[in-house]
Amino acid sequence: MNLNLVRPLIRGALDEDVGRGDITSEALFPSSLKGRAQIVAKEEGLLAGVEVAKEVFRLSSSGSMKFSRSLKDGDLVGPKKAVLIMEGGASSILRGERVALNFLSRLSGIATLTRKYVDLVKDLEVRILDTRKTSPHLRVLEKYAVKTGGGVNHRFGLDDGILIKDNHIKICGGVGEAVKRARKNLSPLLKIEVEVENLAQLEEAIAAGADIIMLDNMGKGKMREAVSRIRSHEKHILIEASGGINLENVRNVAETGVDFISVGGLTHSVASLNFTLEMM
Amino acid sequence: MNLNLVRPLIRGALDEDVGRGDITSEALFPSSLKGRAQIVAKEEGLLAGVEVAKEVFRLSSSGSMKFSRSLKDGDLVGPKKAVLIMEGGASSILRGERVALNFLSRLSGIATLTRKYVDLVKDLEVRILDTRKTSPHLRVLEKYAVKTGGGVNHRFGLDDGILIKDNHIKICGGVGEAVKRARKNLSPLLKIEVEVENLAQLEEAIAAGADIIMLDNMGKGKMREAVSRIRSHEKHILIEASGGINLENVRNVAETGVDFISVGGLTHSVASLNFTLEMM
Amino acid sequence: MNLNLVRPLIRGALDEDVGRGDITSEALFPSSLKGRAQIVAKEEGLLAGVEVAKEVFRLSSSGSMKFSRSLKDGDLVGPKKAVLIMEGGASSILRGERVALNFLSRLSGIATLTRKYVDLVKDLEVRILDTRKTSPHLRVLEKYAVKTGGGVNHRFGLDDGILIKDNHIKICGGVGEAVKRARKNLSPLLKIEVEVENLAQLEEAIAAGADIIMLDNMGKGKMREAVSRIRSHEKHILIEASGGINLENVRNVAETGVDFISVGGLTHSVASLNFTLEMM
Amino acid sequence: MNLNLVRPLIRGALDEDVGRGDITSEALFPSSLKGRAQIVAKEEGLLAGVEVAKEVFRLSSSGSMKFSRSLKDGDLVGPKKAVLIMEGGASSILRGERVALNFLSRLSGIATLTRKYVDLVKDLEVRILDTRKTSPHLRVLEKYAVKTGGGVNHRFGLDDGILIKDNHIKICGGVGEAVKRARKNLSPLLKIEVEVENLAQLEEAIAAGADIIMLDNMGKGKMREAVSRIRSHEKHILIEASGGINLENVRNVAETGVDFISVGGLTHSVASLNFTLEMM
Amino acid sequence: MNLNLVRPLIRGALDEDVGRGDITSEALFPSSLKGRAQIVAKEEGLLAGVEVAKEVFRLSSSGSMKFSRSLKDGDLVGPKKAVLIMEGGASSILRGERVALNFLSRLSGIATLTRKYVDLVKDLEVRILDTRKTSPHLRVLEKYAVKTGGGVNHRFGLDDGILIKDNHIKICGGVGEAVKRARKNLSPLLKIEVEVENLAQLEEAIAAGADIIMLDNMGKGKMREAVSRIRSHEKHILIEASGGINLENVRNVAETGVDFISVGGLTHSVASLNFTLEMM
Amino acid sequence: MNLNLVRPLIRGALDEDVGRGDITSEALFPSSLKGRAQIVAKEEGLLAGVEVAKEVFRLSSSGSMKFSRSLKDGDLVGPKKAVLIMEGGASSILRGERVALNFLSRLSGIATLTRKYVDLVKDLEVRILDTRKTSPHLRVLEKYAVKTGGGVNHRFGLDDGILIKDNHIKICGGVGEAVKRARKNLSPLLKIEVEVENLAQLEEAIAAGADIIMLDNMGKGKMREAVSRIRSHEKHILIEASGGINLENVRNVAETGVDFISVGGLTHSVASLNFTLEMM
Repeated sequence: MNLNLVRPLIRGALDEDVGRGDITSEALFPSSLKGRAQIVAKEEGLLAGVEVAKEVFRLSSSGSMKFSRSLKDGDLVGPKKAVLIMEGGASSILRGERVALNFLSRLSGIATLTRKYVDLVKDLEVRILDTRKTSPHLRVLEKYAVKTGGGVNHRFGLDDGILIKDNHIKICGGVGEAVKRARKNLSPLLKIEVEVENLAQLEEAIAAGADIIMLDNMGKGKMREAVSRIRSHEKHILIEASGGINLENVRNVAETGVDFISVGGLTHSVASLNFTLEMM
Repeated sequence: MNLNLVRPLIRGALDEDVGRGDITSEALFPSSLKGRAQIVAKEEGLLAGVEVAKEVFRLSSSGSMKFSRSLKDGDLVGPKKAVLIMEGGASSILRGERVALNFLSRLSGIATLTRKYVDLVKDLEVRILDTRKTSPHLRVLEKYAVKTGGGVNHRFGLDDGILIKDNHIKICGGVGEAVKRARKNLSPLLKIEVEVENLAQLEEAIAAGADIIMLDNMGKGKMREAVSRIRSHEKHILIEASGGINLENVRNVAETGVDFISVGGLTHSVASLNFTLEMM
Repeated sequence: MNLNLVRPLIRGALDEDVGRGDITSEALFPSSLKGRAQIVAKEEGLLAGVEVAKEVFRLSSSGSMKFSRSLKDGDLVGPKKAVLIMEGGASSILRGERVALNFLSRLSGIATLTRKYVDLVKDLEVRILDTRKTSPHLRVLEKYAVKTGGGVNHRFGLDDGILIKDNHIKICGGVGEAVKRARKNLSPLLKIEVEVENLAQLEEAIAAGADIIMLDNMGKGKMREAVSRIRSHEKHILIEASGGINLENVRNVAETGVDFISVGGLTHSVASLNFTLEMM
Repeated sequence: MNLNLVRPLIRGALDEDVGRGDITSEALFPSSLKGRAQIVAKEEGLLAGVEVAKEVFRLSSSGSMKFSRSLKDGDLVGPKKAVLIMEGGASSILRGERVALNFLSRLSGIATLTRKYVDLVKDLEVRILDTRKTSPHLRVLEKYAVKTGGGVNHRFGLDDGILIKDNHIKICGGVGEAVKRARKNLSPLLKIEVEVENLAQLEEAIAAGADIIMLDNMGKGKMREAVSRIRSHEKHILIEASGGINLENVRNVAETGVDFISVGGLTHSVASLNFTLEMM
Repeated sequence: MNLNLVRPLIRGALDEDVGRGDITSEALFPSSLKGRAQIVAKEEGLLAGVEVAKEVFRLSSSGSMKFSRSLKDGDLVGPKKAVLIMEGGASSILRGERVALNFLSRLSGIATLTRKYVDLVKDLEVRILDTRKTSPHLRVLEKYAVKTGGGVNHRFGLDDGILIKDNHIKICGGVGEAVKRARKNLSPLLKIEVEVENLAQLEEAIAAGADIIMLDNMGKGKMREAVSRIRSHEKHILIEASGGINLENVRNVAETGVDFISVGGLTHSVASLNFTLEMM
Repeated sequence: MNLNLVRPLIRGALDEDVGRGDITSEALFPSSLKGRAQIVAKEEGLLAGVEVAKEVFRLSSSGSMKFSRSLKDGDLVGPKKAVLIMEGGASSILRGERVALNFLSRLSGIATLTRKYVDLVKDLEVRILDTRKTSPHLRVLEKYAVKTGGGVNHRFGLDDGILIKDNHIKICGGVGEAVKRARKNLSPLLKIEVEVENLAQLEEAIAAGADIIMLDNMGKGKMREAVSRIRSHEKHILIEASGGINLENVRNVAETGVDFISVGGLTHSVASLNFTLEMM
């Protein structure tokens, strides 16, 4: 992950929490007091965001925090093992505590959940995709956590990928017309993905030359048929399954032979992984 | 909610999603095309964030979007009823779609969950509190959603409330010493809250003059005893229960007689409420 | 003081003064020239803001300025003694000169004035409070200077304290009604302060359960009576005197027995303390 | 004054005061409540900043505040006459109150003080100048207030005027050398001002071709002699008196025949003019 | 073009030019003076940026400027015909003049130049591409101008397209290895482009499965051979010619049969189209 | 050049290019990989912007890039000689490559062109001036490049110099009236420049006391006459020639005896100097 990119975001999160100052710590001990602390996970999971957490403390201490030990993103964590040990100004540690834990908990929660999906289909030729259903302002970080968990990132915004969805199709008057317009007005440097809800739309999409086809909210039978039609037509087309996918049904979907399964819940409905910071 | 306060946040979320432009819509239809759309919930829940969603579309349309119908925050929503109907530039609608839904889904998810907690204890003299375990950058909005669901907001940051926690106590060498320092160095204009983990700490806290005592991770029996000791000493002290509280055990905790129960999961582990936007 | 918090403010002040560059220094000597300089007070007073001044030069020199000697905030200063001696790029020193002196002069002016008020009442159980009548953008710094001078900070903004004032009372239709609404709609985690102008309002405030009562613009006699009524009712209520207080009358007000005296002039009408920077 | 220029400054001041929201007003009345209010001066003075005050309320109300009456900058104000009457959301009025008054009080204080200096020398061919000793971030506004009071603005920053001061002279090794370097390295599109402390430096400055000479901290006799030497040499040179000038001695200084008198105290040690806002 | 996206850029350009205020206009006429003005091209060319110019004046007038007539981007302009007629505050017009003309001149210069390239190859199946050699901060606008002139936009940044260049190849140890790593680590949702300098690299690129091949700085003969090898292997591969292309040689390059020709000079070495603003 | 001033501009340019991350490099090699690279000019010219380029890499590497060799601005560059050699993270080098080259190419292009103009008139008492026809956001840098090439900077914005142009004159009703108003309303601390198009206007300008006269778009004969009239009247007046000046006619214009020649093309129509970055 590129810390330059997320530093303003981290600084903003610190500003949000610290506001005009940590009035409790200021009242309790001198700002010159030094301290040592560790971060520990209170449950088992997959670590993501440890560099973000370190950057929180670098910013809260104007660069003077020292880290004597640190696990790496992608490591397994659990109650017995310190994720990070730091040494520096006690007030800097406490000023960064909640922000660092909030980042770490959410990102590790996402990585842990993604890993569960990935593990359920790991013997198949299919990959787990994320969506744009991320927390406002945190997309780059949350997609990084998905990748840490073994998932693949779909587009990051409206500007770096073409995805023709139901509302576009309604405006254009049909899947075929929509894909045709995209082909005409966009340079061939980008792949064109289109969402289809039934087999008629699917045929239009193939005929119009879509590069990627998203099968939206199809049942297992219909999806299997869709996959087989695409494969019989055209080897180059990639297939994504989407809509209502969860830990219970992901295996079923994967077995239809799609290339990708996108799961909004990876980022929109994730339980944080519980971490705590302890002064030592 | 004060929209002035959150407008920069909403603008930032739009910037994050739109980036250098919505390349799909630009390729499919002229930017002068007008459209009409509705937002509908795909499951039942409590609405929160509708003014945020409207502001997203105001910003994506430079103020030209018209809203012909809108439910209000706190209303119940479900699959049959439009939450919001809007009319304006089709490209402005699609540019705002995902961002508006992301805000609406998360905030309504929080409000819906908070309402569940509140309902479970509504016959008792106890209130549900949030924490600072919020999504970075979204604290003001997420705490607003908690309030919409009937919860009460705890402090918004390190600067607007005094809360002496375990790490402070370790640094000061004890609960009593910590509260005493706070009393001495802070003006009496603010209440002093302190976290205690056992009855010995509790006695120190009472003796040192804490205004609010947080009972952290106590079992039901110990918590009941703690409440009774506080009530026998000093009527003015407020009591907060904290740590590991969920929908299963919140009723038990409430019955111990505490004034407040804080639930981190209200904001750190919430499932989004599912909304969709449909061009009409 | 938390420099992270005020760094953007200091950078903005440098931008304001330096604009597109220091055209005089650029014309007179090479940017590689090194220099040494001291800051000296030209009159006696109480120092505040020396860390701000140092940060100005750190920013103007991209971190390369060295400080070989420095007094501390709260120290007495006068014409004979260097407040700060620095060594670094001559152009960095001159680029920071005016901004550093402007901060230092205003903050030390405030600290010096606050100390005068504090000294006048130091044998009494009363504390000097500041107000929100601060220079736009400088509130955190000016309140820090008040604290350096021995004063106590009242709320920092509309968001970290409840103060029901004359306009609120007019809107609510009375002191009692206003306090009642606050009690109902706000959590008991915060103290409620209310401004009263006469004894009738005072009785309402006590009856409605105010935590802090501000006696606004009362004469000495009426104030004394107000204090005695409050003390006879309810020991927990804190009393603040406010309105038209200056160095001449502060002692009189203090002798009425109030807990706090707030003085707007600490920050809205203060004479700068005169400092100068000399290349050595 | 160009409001575009100061709008970000005003927005920042509102952010500083309102922070996460006006918790008192939110608790006391619905945000839909309308109100009417007037601003009145509590003492006599010269008005400056009324457009800034109006912009505060425009921003606090997202543009919906209506102003039914308003005095203009440069008008005399006093206790009997409304400066500004506004109508709009009551919460918007109260959210803007303190910020608007803080701007208005400081700017009118500066204009009122400047007018006193100007009046003391108005029969003479001399003009009152401000300095860069302004409140950080408020320079454009404070210099506007000086102009409103009849003063003349000296340079706004290090980038829009050349002023060779004592520290530059020390670095260059003399007044003559400094002016010579400036002449050589700067285009003749800008005038060169140099500070001199005695008659020897004055002769050097004249010989080297300074366009403006600042007589720094000279007694009346020496200043008179300096003026006469300059006038005898070279008609084009402008003369500025500077250093320790106050309401008591400004007339004396003016009578020496200088063209300009600069007064730091116009902006660094000014008493606010007292205004109040009343809901009607 | 999405004005929301470029508004901050336009505001920044106005801030850069206006700084602390337009001192000339302020001295010459009252800010209430109304005026009317037209913008006219002083030479023939293709218009681009007229909406940007209008936004400049909207911002300089806080939204009060009226436009009574306006050509559209893509129109031909010349000395006789007004591009834009506006009516509003005279000081707002003059405050925006230079910034509006600077945008208009550069963007129209780019569109005019692009059109020349496009016209030279318009009977062939080839398209003119831009590069990332744009003016810092103006990329979105300059690429928009390229599109207005009939060109096609290549990637907007390092984040929305994969282009393996000479330095990447050196790091990876060869074209084949580089493309292989990209294939493995990137999802197939994006096309992979690789730069090759000779036929050996070309074979590696084809073998490794590149989607787009850039022929960098090849002579006409070698380029023709490269095209023929690619076409014989694999129909899906797109071909881009790059390096040292100008108005003299673009036709020759096009005739080799490539799909795209990228021209850095479209944005890095363009002559402005001359426009003027006249008060009417 | 003051890097503090341009650092935000450089950071913004990096943000523009890197966006959400360099997806190509991330896919090809680990972020821990170290590398070494040099920047070389591909044609001969005058170097400008090397400190900007270094700052780009400092920012892209969070300060960890090392520069082992560097030419200085104003040095001649050409194909054989490294301009800059750096060592650090390979991904940091590639992330900064395009942005650094874009700055370096444009600034060196400007410096190289300016030097050509300066050389053509170097035996005469005349200086080459730039204008405000610069790339939006890059004015400070582009004017620095002009200075590096031996030119002189005219004003940087509307706020640091007075220039009465044709539109002002039309509004005021004549050159004389315009200059008179400027004289009255502006302090004599600034010089007044006025643009004249013919000899009648010239006489008015002289009579009204202009300090600098710009001869706009005059033929050589008329310009010569204008110069002679000004010189016969008034030695102090500076003369600037402006309008349609290029490398072909600059010598002719210079020989009329003007003090300054302003050339818009120095910044609005300049060819970039070609640089490349090579991993070593």
